[in-house]
Amino acid sequence: MRTAVIVGTGLIGTSVALALRRRGVDTYLLDTDPTAAHTAEALGAGRAQEPPEVADLAVLAVPPVQVAPVLADLQKRGIARFYTDVASVKSLPGREIEALGCELTAVVGGHPLAGGERSGPLAARGDLFEGRPWVLVPTEHTSDLALNCALELVSLCGATPVLLGAEAHDRAVALVSHVPHLTASLTAARLLEGSESALRLAGQGLRDVTRTAAGSAALWTDILSANAGPVADVLEALASDARAAAGALRRVEGRGDGAVEAAAELSELLQRGADGRAGIPGKHGVPDVGFAAVEVSVGDSPGELARLFSAAADAGVNIEDIGMEHSSDQLMGRARLAVLPARARVLADELRLGGWTVRVADRPGSQGA
Amino acid sequence: MRTAVIVGTGLIGTSVALALRRRGVDTYLLDTDPTAAHTAEALGAGRAQEPPEVADLAVLAVPPVQVAPVLADLQKRGIARFYTDVASVKSLPGREIEALGCELTAVVGGHPLAGGERSGPLAARGDLFEGRPWVLVPTEHTSDLALNCALELVSLCGATPVLLGAEAHDRAVALVSHVPHLTASLTAARLLEGSESALRLAGQGLRDVTRTAAGSAALWTDILSANAGPVADVLEALASDARAAAGALRRVEGRGDGAVEAAAELSELLQRGADGRAGIPGKHGVPDVGFAAVEVSVGDSPGELARLFSAAADAGVNIEDIGMEHSSDQLMGRARLAVLPARARVLADELRLGGWTVRVADRPGSQGA
Repeated sequence: MRTAVIVGTGLIGTSVALALRRRGVDTYLLDTDPTAAHTAEALGAGRAQEPPEVADLAVLAVPPVQVAPVLADLQKRGIARFYTDVASVKSLPGREIEALGCELTAVVGGHPLAGGERSGPLAARGDLFEGRPWVLVPTEHTSDLALNCALELVSLCGATPVLLGAEAHDRAVALVSHVPHLTASLTAARLLEGSESALRLAGQGLRDVTRTAAGSAALWTDILSANAGPVADVLEALASDARAAAGALRRVEGRGDGAVEAAAELSELLQRGADGRAGIPGKHGVPDVGFAAVEVSVGDSPGELARLFSAAADAGVNIEDIGMEHSSDQLMGRARLAVLPARARVLADELRLGGWTVRVADRPGSQGA
Repeated sequence: MRTAVIVGTGLIGTSVALALRRRGVDTYLLDTDPTAAHTAEALGAGRAQEPPEVADLAVLAVPPVQVAPVLADLQKRGIARFYTDVASVKSLPGREIEALGCELTAVVGGHPLAGGERSGPLAARGDLFEGRPWVLVPTEHTSDLALNCALELVSLCGATPVLLGAEAHDRAVALVSHVPHLTASLTAARLLEGSESALRLAGQGLRDVTRTAAGSAALWTDILSANAGPVADVLEALASDARAAAGALRRVEGRGDGAVEAAAELSELLQRGADGRAGIPGKHGVPDVGFAAVEVSVGDSPGELARLFSAAADAGVNIEDIGMEHSSDQLMGRARLAVLPARARVLADELRLGGWTVRVADRPGSQGA
């Protein structure tokens, strides 16, 4: 790929352009809002003008409902050899592209799983996609050349390609992105009922749960509307769980018959939440490597563990998790320090030099992200 | 305060003990599980034994349902002059303490708003409460001496005291803590329906929304059960919003009459979420200071903003937010850099030395947490 035209210079489009510029691709920036295109140019994302000749690839970074009409227009003008988009839903644009009679061999839909609560070119970063999954949804019509061109784009942006069907993609993002966004909004909307004193008690948990609710309401209305069916499926199931949980709480509150069963019902829901959370793979879209365990014998005197952690810090090794076992007489115990496998030997050697009795265990189970 | 006895050496109890040890208070550690008390002792949190004489303060760090019976027992043994607890609900323990005939003048309930998804003494930190709100709920019976002793505890732990009634406290934590925990669990529980490919698409948004769902199901069943009424009130309203949102999505999906109104309904819910999120005060429980704006004139050439940000980074000033205005001819623009007020002058001076045209504006509005 030598030249690319980026259509739509918001957060995602400008970030794609910045990533491509870093790898030496000539990029051209188009946007219906000239300020956005000029801002992207000022950021070093390329030139805010039409490409002087047919570009290798056009990347459509426009809202889902605009993908098909913009694609039809660009193809009519012959602006590029191949076309992809970055819209967060895939079935609807796919159907519309077919309906508008676009040249389907040259097209492969895409969706980089990256972003943030901020939008616009000024939030763009050339490394936005590094290590992130980037879904491509080739159809039966997509040519190998078009797919390879899209795979090259993904690779140049440092992302990991994931091939999926359009409908499987849309069900997946409803579950892992669209409904979580909505539950963040639903939770944050309740806060409007809270007093100033109540909001002073907000902690990191609330900030984390509601962080994505800060996103643009207009943008998210478009995203959710374009994936309305799959999102409604998941949201209905969630609303039903919420009603059941509220019902269980009322029975617990009543302290009458069934209060114990109601608490058990609540506990089961919370456990399903913990299990669901544990199923989220590691940060880079692949399962965690697991940690190595360094087991250290510790005496039963005040400050013994404090000294151990201080020694680990001196060795420059980050402790990912800690477990503790005591012998029956409580006089000696064993601390299990979970560390990255590559750091286990360094830590063990350093601790032994400090006089600790140390054993490196085989990898324990993964700890999740 | 010279001596304190910590009853229950989990995350919170051990963290309180570590904080008090740092400030020179003699601490004694009791737990029905001797391993937990010995682990806390090994961490340097105090001595795992009964205090040799009457302690100044007993801190009950036990589950909500155990506060009253444990308090009654400790008062019978005369273990301390004053008593407080750290349970995350306050009405229920308050009523039970009265019902059990405890000496009410010596007692003030408390709740430090700190913690995390990990539990047990090994997760404890002496700085866990620093800058965090710590609610105290004195009753009409509480003596000034008891309240002052609890205020000293809060101060020694580096927290900010917030005085509230028990019921106002419970409604507040239902809103800002308990229901957000439940919505995290509800969202995470849905993931059990997802395929492996779907979960590979998980991003930071999902991790943030579901982070607290990793907490102990047993512990949270106790917490939610003890505050069942206020939590059910908020959860019912949230479930109703969720049903309405799902209904709106179905009408959008149908693309028939009312689809436009349904999208507007969805947008309004998302906007309420953004507004609710914006109402969360700054990280330390007080409103944000607001930022100062440094305005810089930038030319309309590729890489101009990249050079500006690089210059700001060289000046060692963190850019908190950025806005951009272009003049009508698109040839010059103005970047508004929001920075901490104390850093505005440094940044402006450094940029001027680098040849930029700079103006420091009055404080713009706060940007929230």
